[in-house]
Amino acid sequence: MEFTLGQVAAILQGKVEGDENQKVTRLDKIQEGQQGGISFLANEKYTPYIYETEATAVIVSKDFTPTRALKTNLIRVEDAYNGFTKLLEAYSMLMKSSKVGVEEPSYLDVSSSIGQQAYRGAFSYIGKNCSIGDSVKIHSHVHVGDRVKIGNNTIIHPGAKICADTVIGNNCEIHPGAVIGSDGFGFAPQEDGTYKTIPQIGNVILEDNVSVGANSTIDCATMGSTLIKKGAKIDNMVQIAHNVIVGENTVIASQTGISGSTEIGKNCIIAGKVGIVGHIKIADNTTIGANTGISKSIKESGTTLFGYVAMDMKNFLKSYSIFKKLGSIEDRIRELEKKQ
Amino acid sequence: MEFTLGQVAAILQGKVEGDENQKVTRLDKIQEGQQGGISFLANEKYTPYIYETEATAVIVSKDFTPTRALKTNLIRVEDAYNGFTKLLEAYSMLMKSSKVGVEEPSYLDVSSSIGQQAYRGAFSYIGKNCSIGDSVKIHSHVHVGDRVKIGNNTIIHPGAKICADTVIGNNCEIHPGAVIGSDGFGFAPQEDGTYKTIPQIGNVILEDNVSVGANSTIDCATMGSTLIKKGAKIDNMVQIAHNVIVGENTVIASQTGISGSTEIGKNCIIAGKVGIVGHIKIADNTTIGANTGISKSIKESGTTLFGYVAMDMKNFLKSYSIFKKLGSIEDRIRELEKKQ
Amino acid sequence: MEFTLGQVAAILQGKVEGDENQKVTRLDKIQEGQQGGISFLANEKYTPYIYETEATAVIVSKDFTPTRALKTNLIRVEDAYNGFTKLLEAYSMLMKSSKVGVEEPSYLDVSSSIGQQAYRGAFSYIGKNCSIGDSVKIHSHVHVGDRVKIGNNTIIHPGAKICADTVIGNNCEIHPGAVIGSDGFGFAPQEDGTYKTIPQIGNVILEDNVSVGANSTIDCATMGSTLIKKGAKIDNMVQIAHNVIVGENTVIASQTGISGSTEIGKNCIIAGKVGIVGHIKIADNTTIGANTGISKSIKESGTTLFGYVAMDMKNFLKSYSIFKKLGSIEDRIRELEKKQ
Repeated sequence: MEFTLGQVAAILQGKVEGDENQKVTRLDKIQEGQQGGISFLANEKYTPYIYETEATAVIVSKDFTPTRALKTNLIRVEDAYNGFTKLLEAYSMLMKSSKVGVEEPSYLDVSSSIGQQAYRGAFSYIGKNCSIGDSVKIHSHVHVGDRVKIGNNTIIHPGAKICADTVIGNNCEIHPGAVIGSDGFGFAPQEDGTYKTIPQIGNVILEDNVSVGANSTIDCATMGSTLIKKGAKIDNMVQIAHNVIVGENTVIASQTGISGSTEIGKNCIIAGKVGIVGHIKIADNTTIGANTGISKSIKESGTTLFGYVAMDMKNFLKSYSIFKKLGSIEDRIRELEKKQ
Repeated sequence: MEFTLGQVAAILQGKVEGDENQKVTRLDKIQEGQQGGISFLANEKYTPYIYETEATAVIVSKDFTPTRALKTNLIRVEDAYNGFTKLLEAYSMLMKSSKVGVEEPSYLDVSSSIGQQAYRGAFSYIGKNCSIGDSVKIHSHVHVGDRVKIGNNTIIHPGAKICADTVIGNNCEIHPGAVIGSDGFGFAPQEDGTYKTIPQIGNVILEDNVSVGANSTIDCATMGSTLIKKGAKIDNMVQIAHNVIVGENTVIASQTGISGSTEIGKNCIIAGKVGIVGHIKIADNTTIGANTGISKSIKESGTTLFGYVAMDMKNFLKSYSIFKKLGSIEDRIRELEKKQ
Repeated sequence: MEFTLGQVAAILQGKVEGDENQKVTRLDKIQEGQQGGISFLANEKYTPYIYETEATAVIVSKDFTPTRALKTNLIRVEDAYNGFTKLLEAYSMLMKSSKVGVEEPSYLDVSSSIGQQAYRGAFSYIGKNCSIGDSVKIHSHVHVGDRVKIGNNTIIHPGAKICADTVIGNNCEIHPGAVIGSDGFGFAPQEDGTYKTIPQIGNVILEDNVSVGANSTIDCATMGSTLIKKGAKIDNMVQIAHNVIVGENTVIASQTGISGSTEIGKNCIIAGKVGIVGHIKIADNTTIGANTGISKSIKESGTTLFGYVAMDMKNFLKSYSIFKKLGSIEDRIRELEKKQ
């Protein structure tokens, strides 16, 4: 990417103050700006950096008034943050999503179909009877098992594994190394102490606009479907067991694990390293703090929970503040006992 | 798969009540049964669904007596749950294990051998001097390093990595993205604050009937072997460090981590997110609750443990119930102090 | 590898006591030594094993004096542990790092370059405009995205994914299935409850001598770089979010997670399953116990922390020892209340 400041200003419907023929090739943080980079100033906290930045240009809002001399060029727009976001999206689109066509060797079973404007990277694998939409990107080392369906504009990043019978909607993004549709962990104990594998014949359904992070795992249902509803965003190394349901627009941070058959409501925010037992329901709009253990259903919408075994967050913090001084608590009891 | 109800009844040695020429193509949960599906009823809790299900047929036990009119056909068998399990296994076998032969391109070093009825998926890799048994499935993007031995009927799912010198028994299943035999985490601190890598020259041995979940990691031994004994079942994203031993028929749930040189007994049940320090021994038949931290050896067989730092589970729950009201505990002490 | 004891003694500048023509092909633990193996004795605790070992030879220090008859040959050196380590390194070098050349099919975009003495395994993928140094090993199923730079002597193990724009130094080791440079987890909440993806246009930089464990994930920066400084050692299944900085020679054990924009100092030791919130700073030389939750910056160098919400380790252990007997604590308060 190489643009003149004039071209950038045209894209953003803004105005250059400085040399509109200078060129930028990169987006920089204002405090780390270097020659050839373009930054933005939207937060007052960063104002001092605009006088020192080496960036070639800084996007500012229409009401920004410098109080000292500037070394950098300005691009003045209606709203600097929105302007920069627009540029960020354009840049990202140019850099990351432009792959189209087929790199060889790749593997596509003759019984499967893939839409227009798609990308299949070298060493990508698509099994039998798959139906894959338009503008889908199947990167290198992706495995797509038999009978998988994928909607339009979905991106499957390098090395992700989409197991047989999975259904993925439109505009989804599956990050590198994620595994969708692996067998659920189901074993029937036998009388001699061994375990017999319970066949897992269900699948995984990801609705539209779902994102699954790098090296996350979502197991297929024993029967029926493990279901991730539209707009849910799942971070790296999250484990979702068989028959779980994750509600619309629920966000789940890294290293969280959800056990089998649990149903998470919509618009929940689940922080990192949370553990949730199986066969429970979590109400809509629940917020769960990092590292929390959830052992029973949450029935009331809008609760905020925290703790080794989850409690109302305020109560947990109160109890923990006393836990921290339990040594002196015991001393006070001993003192009272002596004085009797 | 398409079977008439008559054919299904013949497989299960049962009897159709209804139209034996109707066809089923799918196994359904009774509460989600649709036209073309076959369900089962084995738990009284689900009895109401049999009157409403849209499934084409439901497998019931010989003593089931409907109390209302049914829309569905019945297949009456000795024991509905066993009958359904039999069907589930037959279905799973048909759908998941039927791959045989070689898809190209694939890589097999000339010095390695593989048995009869095997499957090697496209982009699978088998290094030098490997010995691989009959009916083994090596799916797409699997890496098998040099000098690996694999027994009969073992399935290596897409993208699993079996590093050099690993030994895998018969009837094992390695799920997608699992890494077996990566280097142990061993570094010797040097005087200047840097670390020097300690070579990890041991291997991993998986005995017969071991299952390893998606994206789990089992490190090779520094010297000797990391050993997973027969029948052990390991869930997704479990970390097993160098020189660990896991006993026969021990079950380990997702996101648990076991540190170096620890020895876990047989028939243990270890829940999700457990952390176990290195160089300890866990007795046979130990049960460890989710998210528990184990910092020392467990000597007595049959113990049940739980807690941030593990305690007997009942004691932990007693202590935690008081932790929850520590605020009022302190109030009571303050009250006592005032009254002196 | 097959060496006579005479050859081994020559490498170690030691002296054979026994038959210098016997051959060894393997390094064994002394307590598990078998014919054809060579062991060492450096720790008195293991002295009894030297009289029973079946190993062909044992490396001993110059001052070792047997008190009974030996079945094994000895190689006497200045320092047995150092001697054995030297052998271990030589063995490891021979077994693990000897791959050179190209296995086909592999993919290397014409715009990319790779140095001398390199290895590219079958099904390895190198995208556009990459610059890769000498003696680099790119194993099977490795993905190297566009514009990646890799220094000399770096090993990328099977199935690791190095996403676009990543920069990796010299002598690094990336273990199987690790993902470097996946998109950070950044979503902007919209008024209708949905989330919009924030483009992640930064990269990851690994300086020299960095090790990243199997199936770990390091996200790229939103802008700028996620930075792992020289000599840092990261274990399996560690999650490092966007814009994190990890200091020189810091060691991070398995299943730890570090949230976005946090900065970890140098020479820290972070145990397994630790969770660290975003946007904080951890001082140099901090030690963090397993399973600890860190919710705020650590300002003082040399602190040792532990606990569900981190505390000074000694204080935590004191409080936890009282937590364990909270049942009896409440009994004592009840007793005091009765006696008033």
